[in-house]
Amino acid sequence: MKIENPNPIQWQFSERAQQLQSSFIREILKITQRPEIISFAGGLPSPATFPVERMKAAYDKVLSENGKVALQYGPTDGYAPLREWIAGSLSTEGSTILPEQILMTSGSQQALDLLGKVLIDEGSRVLVETPSYLGALQAFSVYRPEFKSVETDEHGLVPASLEGIAEGARMLYALPNFQNPTGRSLSVERRQELVETCARLGVPLIEDDPYGSLSYKGAPSPKMVAMNPDGVIYMGSFSKVLTPGIRLGYVCAPLPLVRRLELAKQAADLHTAQLTQMVVHEVVKDGFLDQHIPTIRQLYGDQCQVMLDAMQEHFPAGVSWTKPEGGMFIWVTLPQQVDAMKLLEQSLAARVAFVPGAPFYANNPATNTLRLSFVTVPPERIREGIAVLGKLIAGML
Amino acid sequence: MKIENPNPIQWQFSERAQQLQSSFIREILKITQRPEIISFAGGLPSPATFPVERMKAAYDKVLSENGKVALQYGPTDGYAPLREWIAGSLSTEGSTILPEQILMTSGSQQALDLLGKVLIDEGSRVLVETPSYLGALQAFSVYRPEFKSVETDEHGLVPASLEGIAEGARMLYALPNFQNPTGRSLSVERRQELVETCARLGVPLIEDDPYGSLSYKGAPSPKMVAMNPDGVIYMGSFSKVLTPGIRLGYVCAPLPLVRRLELAKQAADLHTAQLTQMVVHEVVKDGFLDQHIPTIRQLYGDQCQVMLDAMQEHFPAGVSWTKPEGGMFIWVTLPQQVDAMKLLEQSLAARVAFVPGAPFYANNPATNTLRLSFVTVPPERIREGIAVLGKLIAGML
Repeated sequence: MKIENPNPIQWQFSERAQQLQSSFIREILKITQRPEIISFAGGLPSPATFPVERMKAAYDKVLSENGKVALQYGPTDGYAPLREWIAGSLSTEGSTILPEQILMTSGSQQALDLLGKVLIDEGSRVLVETPSYLGALQAFSVYRPEFKSVETDEHGLVPASLEGIAEGARMLYALPNFQNPTGRSLSVERRQELVETCARLGVPLIEDDPYGSLSYKGAPSPKMVAMNPDGVIYMGSFSKVLTPGIRLGYVCAPLPLVRRLELAKQAADLHTAQLTQMVVHEVVKDGFLDQHIPTIRQLYGDQCQVMLDAMQEHFPAGVSWTKPEGGMFIWVTLPQQVDAMKLLEQSLAARVAFVPGAPFYANNPATNTLRLSFVTVPPERIREGIAVLGKLIAGML
Repeated sequence: MKIENPNPIQWQFSERAQQLQSSFIREILKITQRPEIISFAGGLPSPATFPVERMKAAYDKVLSENGKVALQYGPTDGYAPLREWIAGSLSTEGSTILPEQILMTSGSQQALDLLGKVLIDEGSRVLVETPSYLGALQAFSVYRPEFKSVETDEHGLVPASLEGIAEGARMLYALPNFQNPTGRSLSVERRQELVETCARLGVPLIEDDPYGSLSYKGAPSPKMVAMNPDGVIYMGSFSKVLTPGIRLGYVCAPLPLVRRLELAKQAADLHTAQLTQMVVHEVVKDGFLDQHIPTIRQLYGDQCQVMLDAMQEHFPAGVSWTKPEGGMFIWVTLPQQVDAMKLLEQSLAARVAFVPGAPFYANNPATNTLRLSFVTVPPERIREGIAVLGKLIAGML
């Protein structure tokens, strides 16, 4: 049946495909999955937090009671009861979110891709934090925008720095709670100022919020979408509060935008698995997350403190780091002359991994930065790994 | 907290977003889901074929034995044992498919989107059948190609008609088995000729095959990918042989292309749900489909025959239709002067629905065509609905 000596295809890829790059993090993760490595490189939540039994019971219940519906094609916008639940959870006293504003997505990475598809033309200006979430840079890059990095300080994004660079921007992408990669959060005042500035300048503000409920102490900060529901696009995810492997996220957007996103999703994958959405609704509808999330906060908060204490003990003078109040990451700034990529080479030889900070910058990477995650490593291994890093950094000074 | 009188956003969508349109079929489906309507409009498989108990047992087993892995992030290319199983199922005596050539996707609609993303620049030539699968036209359209319609006859696509229009084409998209919308299949000779022609002209050939195993009689036809694994891209799906609601498909491509598709998928949604892939592997690994698929063939084959018999009895002279040997669809050609869209208006008033053929054409729609699906309608309702259509068509002559 096989044809004889076919001409080899001369592949001609699209211009956007020619610049596709693998995430540097995913490449590092491949190296660091061997058990002998102490890896602070991951962005994965701790599997210790996955409510496996609860999920299993929900799959059983949904398939038993409603299997034929759960396994059939479903609507592009998503499973209505779950969209209602989400809209309710985002509504506040002063601001009502409608279920029609919610589009379910295949993880919140897909929301980034759809936003890029619908908002970015080649050369469109897109504003991002300095540094920003790598997965977002990767998703938007496909549509070839011109990235402008917005200034940040120890309190996160500086709203005043938007003046002069915001003109004609298609969006500002921000991660206000326990940011990936820095662990920093925007203060309430900054949020208000940022929302006002974006509204005044006419720039849609994307509020990406995978970690918002993982605050170690105190209540989560107010959401920016509640401050201006007509100008803020909110992205949420079940990955960090339930499990990531089911790939379920959502985007909440003003109606003119959400309809476009829905059409783009229809062309991209028709809809997100109906069964997954019904199961998650079954799990969350009676308040399970209210009991479950505090256990995640406790675990992550304790391990974060172990890492911060170990850094205090082992890192030499001249190294500084963030002190996150939630989330999964600490951001380290080395003395100017230390290259985190060179440090990584040495630390991998000593069986400790992390992610250099440079890939998180859309422009002008700071090569003396790095990201550490503490959530999947047990305390004694955290102390061991930080001691190794401290010694290596000291040796490079 | 809400800010005062924000400026309304003047949404500026990307050029590609401005031309996004909802699938005409999905719009019709919204109207036709009321139970009193006899709907031949659906493209949905029959829920009677969903192996709910088998799926439930597999979810239970995977979550019990391997829950933490199933619920964690997974690799972009997919769950290795399932990719191996698929590669094995596609390999033939003369042609070996490697697991590395398989990329798991969120339904085969996502494979269409990724192929468009990686292969199509604005204005790129893309060759499609006349008529072609609407979901593919929709997915590719986002990337703004120039579609060229390739001639077809009662045996499907005519390979000789590629001469003169294939130059520089980024791909030829074909659905060789029980095509959606026509129900037609390519003969073995035509397949061979098509593969040879594409190889000679240097055009990548996409073989979309969701219905290939749903042959009512006899063995499935040979796959084109086996005839030239370096020039044919094969797309498969679990939607029509297991269940669609889990959203699981795959693409098998030559290595240079599959690596690009993987990078595009990483940016689009990181990976397809690990749990879904492990469950499907659990269901299929010991030959379940060999027992299950014959029950689908039997049901669809019987209902197809009921519809064909009813058409023979009720449709007036001058109407012709395909006689599918598998799959889910019959294609009807009305006398030239009858507009299927007008027929639909009348038939909806009489509570019978179908899909007019025009949206399935990339160029020059034939307005006197329509698609009928017989898989979700019980026999007595098929007869009733076809009688209604026959009477209405006769009235329009």
